[in-house]
Amino acid sequence: MARYLEVYHEPKTIVPENHAAMSTQTSPSQITKDLQRQRDTSRDGFKNKVQLFALTHFGPVWAVVQKIGPVRRWLNNAMLNLEIYKTKTRPYALSMLQDYTSWESLTDRTWTGRHLPAKDISNGKPLPDAAKVAELFRRHGQEETLSPKSTLLFSDFAQWFTDGFLRTVYDFNRENRQLKGTGKNNSNHDIDLTPLYGVKKSITDAIRSRVGGKFKSQMINGEEYAPFYFQNGQVPEEFKELSIAGLDLHPVTDEAKATLFAFGGDRPNVQTGFAVFNTLFIREHNRVASELAKRNPTWDDERLFQTTRNIMIVLLMKIVIEEYINHIAPYHFKFRVDAPIEGSTRWYRQNWMTLEFNLLYRWHGLVPNTVNMPDGTKVPAAETVFNNSHLLKYGLGPMMEAASKQPAGDIGLFNTPAFLVWVEQVSIQMGRDMKLASYNDYREAFGFPRVTSFNQITGDPERQKRLAELYGNVDRVEFYVGLFAEDVRTNSTVSTLIGRMVGIDAFSQALTNPLLAPNIFNADTFTEYGLEVIDNTKSVSDILHRNIPDKSKHYTISMTRLDWKPV
Amino acid sequence: MARYLEVYHEPKTIVPENHAAMSTQTSPSQITKDLQRQRDTSRDGFKNKVQLFALTHFGPVWAVVQKIGPVRRWLNNAMLNLEIYKTKTRPYALSMLQDYTSWESLTDRTWTGRHLPAKDISNGKPLPDAAKVAELFRRHGQEETLSPKSTLLFSDFAQWFTDGFLRTVYDFNRENRQLKGTGKNNSNHDIDLTPLYGVKKSITDAIRSRVGGKFKSQMINGEEYAPFYFQNGQVPEEFKELSIAGLDLHPVTDEAKATLFAFGGDRPNVQTGFAVFNTLFIREHNRVASELAKRNPTWDDERLFQTTRNIMIVLLMKIVIEEYINHIAPYHFKFRVDAPIEGSTRWYRQNWMTLEFNLLYRWHGLVPNTVNMPDGTKVPAAETVFNNSHLLKYGLGPMMEAASKQPAGDIGLFNTPAFLVWVEQVSIQMGRDMKLASYNDYREAFGFPRVTSFNQITGDPERQKRLAELYGNVDRVEFYVGLFAEDVRTNSTVSTLIGRMVGIDAFSQALTNPLLAPNIFNADTFTEYGLEVIDNTKSVSDILHRNIPDKSKHYTISMTRLDWKPV
Repeated sequence: MARYLEVYHEPKTIVPENHAAMSTQTSPSQITKDLQRQRDTSRDGFKNKVQLFALTHFGPVWAVVQKIGPVRRWLNNAMLNLEIYKTKTRPYALSMLQDYTSWESLTDRTWTGRHLPAKDISNGKPLPDAAKVAELFRRHGQEETLSPKSTLLFSDFAQWFTDGFLRTVYDFNRENRQLKGTGKNNSNHDIDLTPLYGVKKSITDAIRSRVGGKFKSQMINGEEYAPFYFQNGQVPEEFKELSIAGLDLHPVTDEAKATLFAFGGDRPNVQTGFAVFNTLFIREHNRVASELAKRNPTWDDERLFQTTRNIMIVLLMKIVIEEYINHIAPYHFKFRVDAPIEGSTRWYRQNWMTLEFNLLYRWHGLVPNTVNMPDGTKVPAAETVFNNSHLLKYGLGPMMEAASKQPAGDIGLFNTPAFLVWVEQVSIQMGRDMKLASYNDYREAFGFPRVTSFNQITGDPERQKRLAELYGNVDRVEFYVGLFAEDVRTNSTVSTLIGRMVGIDAFSQALTNPLLAPNIFNADTFTEYGLEVIDNTKSVSDILHRNIPDKSKHYTISMTRLDWKPV
Repeated sequence: MARYLEVYHEPKTIVPENHAAMSTQTSPSQITKDLQRQRDTSRDGFKNKVQLFALTHFGPVWAVVQKIGPVRRWLNNAMLNLEIYKTKTRPYALSMLQDYTSWESLTDRTWTGRHLPAKDISNGKPLPDAAKVAELFRRHGQEETLSPKSTLLFSDFAQWFTDGFLRTVYDFNRENRQLKGTGKNNSNHDIDLTPLYGVKKSITDAIRSRVGGKFKSQMINGEEYAPFYFQNGQVPEEFKELSIAGLDLHPVTDEAKATLFAFGGDRPNVQTGFAVFNTLFIREHNRVASELAKRNPTWDDERLFQTTRNIMIVLLMKIVIEEYINHIAPYHFKFRVDAPIEGSTRWYRQNWMTLEFNLLYRWHGLVPNTVNMPDGTKVPAAETVFNNSHLLKYGLGPMMEAASKQPAGDIGLFNTPAFLVWVEQVSIQMGRDMKLASYNDYREAFGFPRVTSFNQITGDPERQKRLAELYGNVDRVEFYVGLFAEDVRTNSTVSTLIGRMVGIDAFSQALTNPLLAPNIFNADTFTEYGLEVIDNTKSVSDILHRNIPDKSKHYTISMTRLDWKPV
C-alpha cells in the first residue's frame, strides 16, 4: 500500500486505459422537464418551493430591480445569505481525523472537513455491494444523455478550477490498482488558481521567468504556450518540482508526451480541455504583467508577478460567480462579486474543504464519448488525455469555440462513461469508509424534508426501480448515490441537492477570499489598472479575446448551449 | 549569523548573565494618578474621554445592569464591538514579507502580521541612536517603581500565556551575541495553551503518558509535577523533541539544571513563575482527564486526552478574559466569555499575530529585582531563572500565594531592570528594521488624535525632557518608545494606547477560538462534566484550589494587589 505522497491522485481526473468509445449524439431533449413532471414533489419543502417559484418566475420584475444599483446590491447580499444559511456555517466541529472534536481536528486542515458527523447507516443490515451500486452510474452503451443547458466548455472549466482546491489524498494499491481515500488532502482550501500557480512556492518559482513578472513561455504558430515539460523525453532540472498526476499510471506515446506543458498545477495536463484553460490564464497573466510593467517602470519582477497574481485570482472569482454559478442556477437573479465584501456575517469563516463538497463535484456524466475539434472531426475522449497536440494544432480560440459548441453530457445516474465507472465505486467506498450519513440526513441538514419514497428523488421509473432493488428503503440510500439519483433541476445543470450544496460552499468559500476584503480590495493591492481589468472581466470570452494573435477575430465562447431555451 | 531554527528565542524571556540586584521596595504610590493630573489631556479625543468617563463612573448603575442577564449579555457584545472596532479589522493587507500585498503575504502566517504599512519615519534626519533610546527604559539604580495595582502573579501569567502565541523568530549573531528580528514567527496564532501542549504534535506526543489521557508526571512531597527534563545531566530519548529557549546561552549550575521540567512549551522553564503556571495546568489537565475517565469508562487514552485539552483551552480563555483582561481594564463593566460566540461581526476573522502586538507586550517594567518566597526570603530574580528549585521546595500553593502578595513593577520608561535593557534595544531596532510607522501614526490608526507636544504623552517632566532631547518633535517618536512613554492609565496597569491595542487583539483573537463557536461549544465537544468545569472556573484561584494536596487549605491568589483601591 504505497501512499501517494508526490502525485496526489484525484479520481475525477483518472482516465481510460482502454477506451474505444464512439459517439452517438442524441439531440437536445426535454427529458429533465419531463422527469420533473413525473416526480412526486410533496417532500420538496414548502419554503423551498416558494423560493424557487419566486426566483424562476416574474422575469421582467427581476430584470428591472437588477438595474437599480443599490437594490441589486442589497438583493445580492440577501440572496447570498439566503443560500448560505440553509445549513450550519463553519467552523465545522469535525474533520476526517476523528469521530469527535479535538484541537487537531479544529486546526489541522490537512484532514478533510465534514459537514455531518460519522454515522453507521447500515442499520445492522449490510449495504449493497459497492461494485453493484457503481453500475447504477454506467452510461447505457454508447448512448450518452446530453445536457440540455451546458457545453463542454462548462465541463472543462468546472474540472479545471475545482482541481485547484478539491485535492483528496489516496492510498494506491499497486497490486489491484485500487485507490482508497485516506481522509487527508493537500489543498490550500482557497480558490486561488492553484492550477496556474501550483500548490506551493517551490512550484511557482520553477515556472517563473524572473523577468517582468511573467511566466516562462514559448511561441508556437504565433501563440503563447507554457514551455514543454519534457525535453528529449526527460524532465529538465528546472522543472523537477513539477508533477503530472497519474502520468506514471497511464500509457502515453512519446509523441503525446512531447506535447505536455510545464504547468504549476499537477492536473491541467490530464486532458486537453484543462490545458486550454491553463494556457488562457498563462497568457492573461503575462499580458497583465506587461501592462503593469509599462505603468510601473520602477517595479521589479517580484512585485510585477505578485500584483499580477492578485489580479488573476480575482478574475477567476469573477468568472466563477458571474458566469459559472449563474450558469448553474436556474434563477432570474444573477449573482455578482460586489467587492469589497464587508461580511458582517456568520458565514465569513476560514475555508475548509469538506468530503461532501468533494464528492458532489464528481460530475462524470458531463464527459462526452468524443470531443469535437474545430474542423468538425470527432476525437475519442481518450485521445485527448495526456495529449495537447490538438490544442497546438488548432490554437486556443478555435479549441474554446469548439468546446462552446459541443453539448456536455447530463449529470446523473446512467451517464458515466464506461472508463470512469470504477471511479464511482471508489467514491461510493470512500463515503462508506468515512462513515458519511445518508442522503436523507444530508437533505435534512441542508433544508429539505426527508423523502419517504423513491419517486420523490427522481421521476424516472428505471432509477426508482434500481434504487428500490438495491436499498429497499429510501432511508438507506447513500449520500453519493442520492445526489446523482435526483433529476437535474429544470433550467439548471445539476440536481436540486447538488445545486444547494455547491452554492453554499462556492459562495462562502469564494467570497471569503482575502483579496476581496475591505482593507485589501483596492488600488494598493491591484493598481488602478488592475481594478479596471477586474471590472472589465465578466466572462471567459472577455479574457480569451484579449489573448489571441488576431485581435479582430471573434469566437463564440459559452458555458451555455447556444440552442438552450429556459422552459 | 546563525538562524535560530530549533530554539526560537524570544527576548522577553532573555535573562541576566550577571545580575546581582538587590531589592529596595518602594511603597505603593499615587504616582500614576499624580502624573495623569499633570498631563495635557487636550489630545485624548472627546469620544474617548466620554467613553472612559462613562465606564469609570456610575459604579452602582453598572453593578445593577450587570445583574440583569440579557442586559449584561447585550452590553458585553456591545462593549466588545466598541473596543475592537477602534481600528481596521483583519485580514491585514500586509505582513513582514513585503511592503506590498501578495498572495503569499495574505496566506503565509509564518510571516508576522502588521497593522500599518511600512514607512520611513526619519524624514531625512537619522533617528537617535538605538542604544541611547534604550537607556530611556533603564530602571533608576535599584529603585524600582511598583505597580499600584498588579501583583507578580499578574506578571507571571502575562508572560506565561503570551509566550504561547507571540513567537518571534530571530537571527542570532554568536560573535556579538546579538539578536535581530527576521519578520518571521513560529506561532500557531491561536491562544491555544502552547506552553502546556507544545507548538506541534511531536512535542505533545513526547509528554503524554498514553494512559487515561494524562500527561507524564511525577509526585514530589505529595504534589504532582512534570518529569524532569534531564536525567543524569542528559536529555533522555523520550524528550528529544522538547527544547528550552535560551538554555544553551545561559550558564546554569548542574543543581538548577536538574530541576528543569519536561514541558511542552519551550519557555515555561525560563523562570519559576512560568513553571508555576505550567505545573498548575498540568495538574488540572490530569485531574480533568481522571474525572472524564470515571464518567466515560469506554473512552480510550486518545479521546480522554483530546477532550481534556478542549476543556483546558477554554479554561485559559476564561482566565484571560474574566480575570486578566478585567484586571487590566479600569472599567466598572466586567467582560465575560459568553460562549457560544455567534460572531455576526466584521472582526470575526482568522487570527494573525502582528509585530505591533508582540512589541507592546514587552512589559519588562513588571519584573521586580527580587522575588519574595513563601517564607519571606527575597531571592534575586536572576536566581529564579532556569531554576525550579524554589517551586519544588515550597510547593505550588505557597509559591502562587507569595506571587499574589508581591507587587509587580510598573510598566513604562525608567523601570526596566538593568539586565533587560539590551532587549529594549533589540526591540527598538526591530521596529526600525521592519519600518514601523510612528507612535502618532498608531495613535491615529487606533482612534486617538495625534499628539502635538510631549506633555500630551506623559505628565512626567523627566520623560518629557528626555523624549524632547532625543526626538525634538513628537511626530518622530517611535511606536515602541511612545507606548511605554505614556503614563499608566489611572486604575489600569498599562498605558492608554497599550490598553486599547491589547483589548483589540486579545478580544478579536481569543473569542474567535473555534472551541467557542456555535456548532462546537457544546457537550459533544466538552461533555456535560466539561461544561460544568468551564462554568465553575472564573479565576486562577479556582483552578489552584482543585489541585493542591490538602483540599482544606486556602491560599490568597490574586492578580490585583490586596491593598489596591481605585482612585
